[in-house]
Amino acid sequence: MEFPKVFPEHDSWYEHRVSYGETDAMGVVYYAEYFHIFERARGLFLRERGMGYHLVEQRGILLPVREATCRYRIPARYDDLLQVHCGVAEWRRASMRIVYEVWNADRTQVTAQGATEHPMVNPQGKPVAVPDWFKALCESKPA
Amino acid sequence: MEFPKVFPEHDSWYEHRVSYGETDAMGVVYYAEYFHIFERARGLFLRERGMGYHLVEQRGILLPVREATCRYRIPARYDDLLQVHCGVAEWRRASMRIVYEVWNADRTQVTAQGATEHPMVNPQGKPVAVPDWFKALCESKPA
Amino acid sequence: MEFPKVFPEHDSWYEHRVSYGETDAMGVVYYAEYFHIFERARGLFLRERGMGYHLVEQRGILLPVREATCRYRIPARYDDLLQVHCGVAEWRRASMRIVYEVWNADRTQVTAQGATEHPMVNPQGKPVAVPDWFKALCESKPA
Amino acid sequence: MEFPKVFPEHDSWYEHRVSYGETDAMGVVYYAEYFHIFERARGLFLRERGMGYHLVEQRGILLPVREATCRYRIPARYDDLLQVHCGVAEWRRASMRIVYEVWNADRTQVTAQGATEHPMVNPQGKPVAVPDWFKALCESKPA
Repeated sequence: MEFPKVFPEHDSWYEHRVSYGETDAMGVVYYAEYFHIFERARGLFLRERGMGYHLVEQRGILLPVREATCRYRIPARYDDLLQVHCGVAEWRRASMRIVYEVWNADRTQVTAQGATEHPMVNPQGKPVAVPDWFKALCESKPA
Repeated sequence: MEFPKVFPEHDSWYEHRVSYGETDAMGVVYYAEYFHIFERARGLFLRERGMGYHLVEQRGILLPVREATCRYRIPARYDDLLQVHCGVAEWRRASMRIVYEVWNADRTQVTAQGATEHPMVNPQGKPVAVPDWFKALCESKPA
Repeated sequence: MEFPKVFPEHDSWYEHRVSYGETDAMGVVYYAEYFHIFERARGLFLRERGMGYHLVEQRGILLPVREATCRYRIPARYDDLLQVHCGVAEWRRASMRIVYEVWNADRTQVTAQGATEHPMVNPQGKPVAVPDWFKALCESKPA
Repeated sequence: MEFPKVFPEHDSWYEHRVSYGETDAMGVVYYAEYFHIFERARGLFLRERGMGYHLVEQRGILLPVREATCRYRIPARYDDLLQVHCGVAEWRRASMRIVYEVWNADRTQVTAQGATEHPMVNPQGKPVAVPDWFKALCESKPA
């Protein structure tokens, strides 16, 4: 996985409070939980631009995950406030790539980085080209 | 919640290995995880009787959860092997009640007890009376 | 489980956005997820009063869960905004009982109710009487 | 992420039944759940060789996750039986790389592939070289 050197222009910040249920017996956030956090971040990305993901689905576009990666740098602990930076790193004909940086509360350290790749599919599961309206949505300014 | 004094006749045993992801920063299985384990136990209960829950759904009966309870007695830890006893404690006209006992590996101690109540609903979400075939299934001997 | 007729005086409201990872194949929030949401609500209850649960732990008081219950009334779906009311319903010598009401976004309907019982234990796992400072904390006004 | 063309020699097969709690509103296993499944697979890998991960921890070696990746090929559904192939793909001085292939029940299709990288650290969190006994354990035959 290559992470972009410059964070993408079209972005959102999602603030996440670590719950006890997200920690494990090492006392830190369990590695799978970061993918839940990424999903919350990209959900906010769409919601901030005026169309929650369920509305995107209702317009006939589903965004399953084709690949997901996370690199863990600094463990997070219970009650930590994480600042999750999320942006669209790349458009392909029928898919998109979203990247994530998880920062600590005061945004001085990147504690984790991630990426997810999403094909666009219709409700029957067939790949479709990225619709113009969807790309425009993602490239709009958040409210 | 009242637990039955005698465990129900129609029962199954589900064996569960504790994963790291189920533990929390106290070093024990997080309380919400028991409800996942209960679901696995009642899924096995049906599968052992020849009709996995997805087939029950395909025949038009859904079993959402109306109430769920767990009493925690002895914490479970990573890699523990839990023996989960699951049985149908009660039938009502349009619902059923399932109870659970979580035992330690050698079945000498009950570490947790639980119960779930399930109305029968059709795919449109309307309550329906317990179908005879479903009750017969639950009262059959496991394969 | 008996729910209080009048919601407890010492309370907090926690706002929760439903993520995709919390839903299941029925299209609604999976029943075990409510216990994660309850934990977030009681975590906020303490944090709002100036001492996050990790600080309570550092002062030597742990609050494991002895019993947990949830009654499900109206399913929640992806992207729903839930308003979770959380309050201390009862103090015993060495334990407390917290209750929860999950409301829809505009607080017109209770969609779920729950309760958790927490013994106070020291870091060695021994029960201890409720410390005065802890009870005072819970009965203080949120910041 | 590069996946090995030939699956590693030192391997284990873990059988996983999909639960309802692992599915999401698309009706398939939620993407983060694969990392829980991978953890179960590598836990079994060690247990089959005679030393569960908690015993490895007791001997002073912790294996946090530095990087995790999953590529999703074919969705899994409720009650599916997954066959998870897990093996050690690479040793470095102070870390190891584990790879995973998730097969369908009859092992005719790879439905997902994954990899995790684990530094060896001591209980104080300091990196340590891979201990000989640990490498020998991983290269032993399963019981």
